[in-house]
Amino acid sequence: MWQVKDNSLYARFEFKDFIDAFTFMTGVAFQAEKMGHHPLWTNQYNVIEIWLTTHDEGNIITDKDRQLSEIIEKIYKTMKME
Amino acid sequence: MWQVKDNSLYARFEFKDFIDAFTFMTGVAFQAEKMGHHPLWTNQYNVIEIWLTTHDEGNIITDKDRQLSEIIEKIYKTMKME
Amino acid sequence: MWQVKDNSLYARFEFKDFIDAFTFMTGVAFQAEKMGHHPLWTNQYNVIEIWLTTHDEGNIITDKDRQLSEIIEKIYKTMKME
Amino acid sequence: MWQVKDNSLYARFEFKDFIDAFTFMTGVAFQAEKMGHHPLWTNQYNVIEIWLTTHDEGNIITDKDRQLSEIIEKIYKTMKME
Repeated sequence: MWQVKDNSLYARFEFKDFIDAFTFMTGVAFQAEKMGHHPLWTNQYNVIEIWLTTHDEGNIITDKDRQLSEIIEKIYKTMKME
Repeated sequence: MWQVKDNSLYARFEFKDFIDAFTFMTGVAFQAEKMGHHPLWTNQYNVIEIWLTTHDEGNIITDKDRQLSEIIEKIYKTMKME
Repeated sequence: MWQVKDNSLYARFEFKDFIDAFTFMTGVAFQAEKMGHHPLWTNQYNVIEIWLTTHDEGNIITDKDRQLSEIIEKIYKTMKME
Repeated sequence: MWQVKDNSLYARFEFKDFIDAFTFMTGVAFQAEKMGHHPLWTNQYNVIEIWLTTHDEGNIITDKDRQLSEIIEKIYKTMKME
């Protein structure tokens, strides 16, 4: 799901509509805030793109990014079950 | 899942923590707003209780309540897959 | 705004519609999660009722409840400015 | 606040932290869903950038974009009052 792109972990997520996409974003937002590690992300209707990198380390991919990427992937897989 | 209680469709939902519970609530909130039909609901940490009734019809259970109950159940089942 | 009721700090909040009410709830949800201290709350359309008490201390009102009540009040006042 | 950029209405919003930024996004999300008109938007911590354009009209700025831009601006001003 994730690939390395521009010194970031990058993934693209697609949902059936905006409501599902934004509900996913809410779940991710709470987990990101809990970790104190926040994504760069873009949304347009049912599509979300996420880039994870660690600014404090000079924009490289760290364990924090890998950890958040796993949490995001889990939320995505849960919500795509329907 | 749903039972008739106090002239309402009533159900109790339990999640692993507050984040999952509130993410579920967000999904329900969008669908309720879309329908123009809103629940009475209570949340405490990982538990949500929902009562559905139709005020405009004199607090009886109508098709709107049954329709929203099905949507809510679907969101719940999706989010409990993890 | 807050009153003591059933060993809790209690307040009732009213908004112009469901969207404003739920946006307020989202702000409160993030702050509650951040504090690790969560309300008992009820929502129906544009009305939210909140009870704050500390279970770990045997359901009494503690500084955590007072602190969260102040944060909630600040969010409410911000959102009622419109 | 809004400027024309890449055939879109564009604006940049800044908040004190991620929680405020995402609460603002939640308010915008509900209004966008209500209008059936959704933004392209990017978030990174406390900053949100929004582009509004109408795909169905061949990516030009229409009244729908202007209307949503006013709603977004109102939500922003409300939330910046604190």
